[in-house]
Amino acid sequence: MKELIDLVNEHLDEYLQITYPEDIFKAMKYTLMLPGKRLRPVMCLETARILGCDIKKVMPAACAIEMLHVQSLIHDDLPCMDNDDFRRGKPSNHKVFGEANAVLAGDALLTFAPQVIIEKSKDLSMTQVVRILHEYTKFAGAYGLIAGQVVDIESEGGKYVKSPEETLDFIHLNKTAVLFRLAVRIGAIAAGADDETIEEFDDFAKKFGLAFQIYDDIMDEVSSFEELGKTIGKDKNSGKLTYVSLYGLEDAQNKFKYLIKECYDIIEKYHSKVFEEILDKLQNRIGSLK
Amino acid sequence: MKELIDLVNEHLDEYLQITYPEDIFKAMKYTLMLPGKRLRPVMCLETARILGCDIKKVMPAACAIEMLHVQSLIHDDLPCMDNDDFRRGKPSNHKVFGEANAVLAGDALLTFAPQVIIEKSKDLSMTQVVRILHEYTKFAGAYGLIAGQVVDIESEGGKYVKSPEETLDFIHLNKTAVLFRLAVRIGAIAAGADDETIEEFDDFAKKFGLAFQIYDDIMDEVSSFEELGKTIGKDKNSGKLTYVSLYGLEDAQNKFKYLIKECYDIIEKYHSKVFEEILDKLQNRIGSLK
Repeated sequence: MKELIDLVNEHLDEYLQITYPEDIFKAMKYTLMLPGKRLRPVMCLETARILGCDIKKVMPAACAIEMLHVQSLIHDDLPCMDNDDFRRGKPSNHKVFGEANAVLAGDALLTFAPQVIIEKSKDLSMTQVVRILHEYTKFAGAYGLIAGQVVDIESEGGKYVKSPEETLDFIHLNKTAVLFRLAVRIGAIAAGADDETIEEFDDFAKKFGLAFQIYDDIMDEVSSFEELGKTIGKDKNSGKLTYVSLYGLEDAQNKFKYLIKECYDIIEKYHSKVFEEILDKLQNRIGSLK
Repeated sequence: MKELIDLVNEHLDEYLQITYPEDIFKAMKYTLMLPGKRLRPVMCLETARILGCDIKKVMPAACAIEMLHVQSLIHDDLPCMDNDDFRRGKPSNHKVFGEANAVLAGDALLTFAPQVIIEKSKDLSMTQVVRILHEYTKFAGAYGLIAGQVVDIESEGGKYVKSPEETLDFIHLNKTAVLFRLAVRIGAIAAGADDETIEEFDDFAKKFGLAFQIYDDIMDEVSSFEELGKTIGKDKNSGKLTYVSLYGLEDAQNKFKYLIKECYDIIEKYHSKVFEEILDKLQNRIGSLK
């Protein structure tokens, strides 16, 4: 796991060179290079690896997913969105570079990510590149990530079209799970996997994504600023729709455990230390709360 | 010209269907469908046509350029950027949908544009699609449009790395000319043009883009809100670096005329009524000021 994280960090650093006008590249790189778990690119690389693909082939696309993730964090933190002053324990992008540059840094990452896929994916076929770019554009936009964010914002005003349960699942299948789905799908496509395998990993990522969000909601309820490196208790204080507010702490924990169990079941046959480590860590953290 | 504009409007409307969650699609569509001159997609289609390509082939990419343009307008108008309440004579996106949705609508357009290129460009070869996507990502991001915007913002604070003249040209070669360049380059690529021809059109678009910006600067100086449909006199009032503030009105007009003359010279051999109409309109407008 640590090796993969280091590889991702090296490549992120290498792909994003600071050039004129430096302010925008510095702003992009600032949030991108904050220490993170790099879960999405790691899951992309590991999916490719266990399906028999050299991870070098998919490194540009894996890093592009992290860029997309970071773009969403930068815009999410803006005063007009979540208005968060901290990210990964450091001042958020607009606190350092100003709001205008933070908006533009996000925009720039959103097109730099596919640019990296096009320029650096030398070992993939053109069909694979186009297919990966197609997945990227679908999952990043109004049919994916942004759909989740918009419904999330609406739900804060208590404005649901669907039931609270469906709304909450919709938000996080899109806002949270979507980048895990993108990660494993791209890994599988790079490995030349068949549709059935791609959908199997997709199913894993949906379940993992929801579990991950429930974990996040539980942590927001019980953890401290020092542990998370971001402002906590915001959800509770804002009366936001979360798995804890909707189901209660115990049922949220049960839902989490059930989803993680399903994830173990799906991934078991691949004997992946990396996926097991990811699942173990989440599970142990929740387990230790009682 | 009118026919091409109508065709672009029809296709923009068709490509962007409103679906759940409606708020984001409505926000995207609101600014996209405001009546506009559609100069960029029209120039893309016309370039393809005069180089012997059926315009249907390049319609998705032409519309994608308009989406990118509109994205930049939505984010430009935000309170943290130009803080403009009007766009094309109507309330700007964030005035109607709120700031958070305006940020997200811009983000969504930025990935929807290449999604449309991928999904709808059925008559282009895969090599052409990848090449067009590559141009799109380069010109839309920190090496193009956003570089221009960032240096523009910096210049307002009087912070130049280069001379004022070089800075101003850099801003508008990127902020303004870049989307005209993208438009003609994509048109030429779709038509299978050789590199020399692509660079010839690129040169046209650079000159046209600068002339267009000088036109804009002159209009901001001498025109009225009713004529432009957006807040005017802002540049002058903010002490911003413009062609008029740097060179004076007369020299700016001379620079404009020189560039437009060069544009006529480059495009003459193609006998394009559309390009001539575009150049005529700009030129007559400036001519009528004296």
